This record gives sequence, C-alpha cells and structure tokens, in this order.
Amino acid sequence: MTDHVGGSLQSLRESNRERLIALLREHGALHRAELARRAGVSRATVTTIVNELLAGGVVVEGAGSEPANGGPTAKRAALTLNPEAGVIVGLDFSAGSVTGVIADLSHQVLADGTRALAPQLGWMGRLDVGVELIDEMRADAGVTGRPLAGVGLGIPGPVDWTTGEIGTSSKSLEWAGARPSAQLAERLGVPVRQDNTAHLGALAEAVWGAARGSRHVVYVKVSAGLSAGLVIDGQMCRGALGATGALGHTCAVPDGPLCSCGSRGCLELYAATPAILEAVRPHHPDASFEGVAERAADGDRPCRRALADAATMLGRSLAGVCNLLNPESIIVGGDLTAAGDLVMGPLRTAVTDHALPIATQALSIGWGDLGDRAGAMGGVALMLQEPESIGASS
Amino acid sequence: MTDHVGGSLQSLRESNRERLIALLREHGALHRAELARRAGVSRATVTTIVNELLAGGVVVEGAGSEPANGGPTAKRAALTLNPEAGVIVGLDFSAGSVTGVIADLSHQVLADGTRALAPQLGWMGRLDVGVELIDEMRADAGVTGRPLAGVGLGIPGPVDWTTGEIGTSSKSLEWAGARPSAQLAERLGVPVRQDNTAHLGALAEAVWGAARGSRHVVYVKVSAGLSAGLVIDGQMCRGALGATGALGHTCAVPDGPLCSCGSRGCLELYAATPAILEAVRPHHPDASFEGVAERAADGDRPCRRALADAATMLGRSLAGVCNLLNPESIIVGGDLTAAGDLVMGPLRTAVTDHALPIATQALSIGWGDLGDRAGAMGGVALMLQEPESIGASS
Repeated sequence: MTDHVGGSLQSLRESNRERLIALLREHGALHRAELARRAGVSRATVTTIVNELLAGGVVVEGAGSEPANGGPTAKRAALTLNPEAGVIVGLDFSAGSVTGVIADLSHQVLADGTRALAPQLGWMGRLDVGVELIDEMRADAGVTGRPLAGVGLGIPGPVDWTTGEIGTSSKSLEWAGARPSAQLAERLGVPVRQDNTAHLGALAEAVWGAARGSRHVVYVKVSAGLSAGLVIDGQMCRGALGATGALGHTCAVPDGPLCSCGSRGCLELYAATPAILEAVRPHHPDASFEGVAERAADGDRPCRRALADAATMLGRSLAGVCNLLNPESIIVGGDLTAAGDLVMGPLRTAVTDHALPIATQALSIGWGDLGDRAGAMGGVALMLQEPESIGASS
Repeated sequence: MTDHVGGSLQSLRESNRERLIALLREHGALHRAELARRAGVSRATVTTIVNELLAGGVVVEGAGSEPANGGPTAKRAALTLNPEAGVIVGLDFSAGSVTGVIADLSHQVLADGTRALAPQLGWMGRLDVGVELIDEMRADAGVTGRPLAGVGLGIPGPVDWTTGEIGTSSKSLEWAGARPSAQLAERLGVPVRQDNTAHLGALAEAVWGAARGSRHVVYVKVSAGLSAGLVIDGQMCRGALGATGALGHTCAVPDGPLCSCGSRGCLELYAATPAILEAVRPHHPDASFEGVAERAADGDRPCRRALADAATMLGRSLAGVCNLLNPESIIVGGDLTAAGDLVMGPLRTAVTDHALPIATQALSIGWGDLGDRAGAMGGVALMLQEPESIGASS
C-alpha cells in the first residue's frame, strides 16, 4: 500500500502522464504526434501513456474539436479528456468543520465548500454533513450528471493504514476504531480512502503546491491541533501503521502540563491555536485566532508575543526534526497561516538557532500554497493515485 | 546517489543475488540448474543474476570442484565464488578509536581489529593508523595476495552526501570540510566511500543484523556521542545533504546547559556515556563505562540510577521519533550495550509512556546484533552496494 502510494506521488508529480493531461485540458483536442511534440517526449512514450489513459477512461478518442492539421488519420487519432469521466471529491474533517473540493480526473477543482460541525458530533452525523456538501458541490459545479468516481477523506488524527481504523490519539479518543471511509463507501457505493489530514496536506503541497519538486518535505498543519506529513525521498512516509507525523505530541517541556494523550508538555499545548488564544485571554477574552492575528498585525504587543512564543516553540521542535530528517522544505499550513511574518520570522530563527548548521543548509521554510483546501485536495490526490480503479469505479 | 544506495539495500537484503552467493559459499561449486533448484527461483532469474556476477568478477565459471551430476555441459557451467576477487575493508572511526573488518565479496568477515586513537589526532594521522590496520587485517586473514576492492569509512559526525565533506557538528568542529575518503582513495588507489557511523550501523543491522526484515528502522548508536541511522520504507534515509539522524542534538531540556553545537540541553548531554560517567563521578571518580555497567549489575545504586536516568532521557526522545516516524524496530548499539537490561528496561518504559499508543503498537526495541563491528560492517555494506564498481576497481 505504502509503496503504491509513494510511487504514485512520484508519478503524479514527475511523470509525463500529468503533462499530457494538462496539454489536453489546455488545448481540448490533440492527436498523438502533437502531444509528443508539445510535451517533448517520444511517440513511444505518448503511445504507452495514452493507452493507459484510454483504458482508464480518462481520455477518449475521436470526440471533441478538429485537430489542427486534420486529415483522416489525424482525425481518428484526436484525443480529448473524457467529458463523461467521473468526478472526485476530497473531504477534509477537522473537529469543528468539514472542507470539500470536487475535481475532475485532470484534477482541476470544479467547486469547493465548507460546513461547520459541532465538535462532539459522531462520525455518522459528520458523514451526513459530508454527503450534503458533496451534493451541494456537484450542483455548484454543474456535474450532477457525471458519476462520482471516489472520495478521499482527511481525518484529524492518526489512521491505521493496515486496518483503515482511526487510531488512538489525544483528539480522537472517542473515535478510536471508527472506519468512516468504510461507512461512506457503503453509503455512496464508490471507493473511499482516508488518511490523516496532515498527510493529505503534505501530499497536496508536494504534488501541486509549495513543496513541488522537493524530495524531502515536512508539512506541518497548525490549527486546533498540530500534526505533520512527511515526504521522504519523494515518497509519502506512513511508517509501520500509518501513524507518522504526530509532531504535536513531541515533548516540548519535559515536566509541562498533562496532555490529553497522557504525556506531559506536548508541543500542541504551546504552539497550536488554542494555546495562543489562552495566552492572550487576559487581554482579549473572546478573540478568535483571526482576531489575534489582526490585532498583532496592528501592533498589539501581547498578541505579537503570543504568536512569537508559539512560533519559537514550534521552531525548536522543527529544529529537532531537521536534525533527524534533514529536509529540503518545511511547509506550514492550517490556521496559523493567517499570522504571516509574525509567526514565520521567529519560527525561522528558532529552527536555525537550534538545528545543526548542516541540517538547515539546504532548507527552505515557508507557508503552503493551498491554504484551507490543502487537506481536501490531498483527498483528491489520494484517489487519483489509483487512476485505474477510479476509471472502473462508476 | 540516495536512490541507488536505497535500492541496493533492498536488493542486498531481499534479492536472490544474496541467496545465490550464499549457496556458492556453502557448496563450493554449483551449476545453474542446481542454483535454481536450491534457491527456489527460475532458471531465467539465475541466468540474469549469474551473468551480473560473472561480469562483476564475483563468481567464475569452470573452476573449483566437480558438480554433483557432472557431464560435459554441467561441468562447463559449474560456478564458484572467485577466489581471486578483491576484499573489502570497513573502517569505523570514533573520536578515540578505529575498528576495522575485512570481508570477501560474499561479505564473509575474514578478520577484524581495533586501534586506539588520540582524540585530538587529525585525519592524516587517523588514516595512517587506518592503513596500518588494513595491512594487519590482510595479513591476519591471509589475503595479502588478493586485491583490495574498496574501503567504506565510518565518520563520527554528519557527512555531506553531495560533497563528501564532513559537516559541522559538535564533535567535528575541527574536522568540518575534511574529506578523508578522498585522501584515502588517493593514497590506496581504490574506491573509498564514507558515511556517518550511525548510518553505517543502521545499514549493517538492516542488511545482516537485528533489523533484518524490518522496513522502518531507527538505529541509535550511544557511545561518547549519540546519533541515529534511519531506514524508511526499506531505504536508507539520508535527507537533503546526508545529515539525517543527529538525534544527540534533539533538545531534551529546553533551558539545559550549553552544548558544543551551540544549542542548549541536547540529548547527548544526558544520555551519552560521558554524561553517565559524570553523574557517578562523586561515587566512582575513575570508573570506565564498562566499570559502571559492571557495578550496576552488582547492585551499586548510584550506577543503576545513572543508567536508568540516561535510558529514560533517551526513551523520551525516541518516543518523539516514534510519534514522527512510526518505526517497526528501534535498535540500540554502541557502548551502552554493555549495560543490558538496566538500560533497556527503563528505555522501553519511557518510549511507551511518552509515545502515542498507535506509534508503538507495531514496535520492537532491542540491542543490535553486530556489536562494536556494526559501523565497520556497514562500511563493507556501503561498498557492496556497488558490486559493478567493486568488480572493476582492482
């Protein structure tokens, strides 16, 4: 499973398959020779890839507009993206919301949406809202007539990759053992895959976003919780059971307060957004995180300090990650993004101050490109990693 | 470079190549049909591998003893390991010593040895001692007449995989920029590769030792320093510049004492052997680490506590590594091995207490199989990863 996903991440990012799909999206209809010329690859390569795309139902032959130099042969060989092909949905759940995107097989996003969720809502109720959101997005995108090819779910906690069950962590004590992907697959009759939301964010940023082209990536999502996704040597790193990236439960302060995971002084207690809100509460009792970020930008000193302290704690832990993994890119996403340089400045300083020089020599640190939609787009990427099954699923 | 090494680690461990070499080592001479039958693989696979081994000079055809059912054809096809093939040396440097092994191309260790080094000795002096050790081991093994095919060097600090230079770390401030592998290659006229000693330990334990068969391995070497080697998805993880595994510089105590790396409270200051000696100094001013381990085994309470404290600090940091990487195996090597269960017990407890349940659910923690020779054997493995160049080098 891990191998397949890893290999497909590489192929999504690096292979010619994506270039051919992009050319067809851009130009509408092209024949094989034009594809080869525009993509700068051999005819044999085009033939191989096109045969796969035809078999998977991603492209069709002989439909769409005339090719540029249409003779009978060229006309017969003109290829277009399959207008009847299925659409793919990514749904990214946090404790308090679900964000969705709907995309076609060429991974163009057609619509998106967000719904609030009561944090105590169980998975049956969460999936009800998710299904409503899917219907709404299909209507918004005008694709109610096209089959749903699959759904990728983002889960705010570890997912045991071997069983599909949600694992035990601080945020998901009541969810442990749940299998929302299986429930949703049964309900919709389509393939549904799930992974931790930060893994999906890493996947999306590595395939389409800020980490594109990097082979060693640490993606950190900082919102109500704090977790990471790792790309190592160009492959998603899921570990023995899929539980990689639980950076929020790194010990930041050895004798710090008890964490809901049962350890003490976990990074999440210092660097996730609830800790920042708690720190400024005496000064701004009802501020939202956006409110804190805005006040800090306007010069409010407690808000600036709370952001800088959280960024420093995060940076210290990321310095340890750099010493351990020597990444090329650290990408930060989630709610923290709203704070901009007031977080990124002290974060960069803390990483550099606490890591070995060689561990950060090749490193860039920055915000993700995909914002709030990173996890949901990662859900789409997760499904696109099995194009054959996507083509066959509806 | 990284890809090649990773791929070869897999092939060393998993491929049929090793089985064929092992059969020839065991049986002396076999023809292709016997190899196929005994290895349980197809004739075609045997033919492919044997052709590579012949081209690399690892095996020869038509020499050695009669095959079991010798007719003219079988006799012509009988294969043996090449008795004239080169030997490979691994030299593993620590600050205070160099340990060497010499092995044949079937990676059987023929001899080994250790020499003390003055910690302040520079690389020219260290290589002098290394060359003497090589000559001594060749004499001990009775292989002075066989060509030296290559040397793998273990370095006690990060090695920049892109330049071959030693990187800046606490232990190697004076060595930064040194290229001992290039110096030794020039001196001996053979290929010399180098890597961090803990990376080599991980490689050797994954290929031949306690981590054999695990795809997600953290090897920790605890001696005068503390560093790690990572195998992720069956591949050596070297990161952007080869600087992975600097676990000794994980922050264990945020406002702890200054470390020579410029950070504070690094794990190495609490869990490496000098910290243990320092802790027991009021009670046992001149004890060696072996002495502390012996006293602890005899019931000395300060020695037991010093070992347990170091193990607990190491376990806390390794819990963070489990949360991040979700490994299947943690293998501990280096001097700490001498302390046995007095370290392993509290270490296991600390890992379990501080990691998320799912992060340790599939985990085993234990000592390495290869002892003091792990790094040097990793040097041999590093050279064996390029069998073609080994065959062609002498």
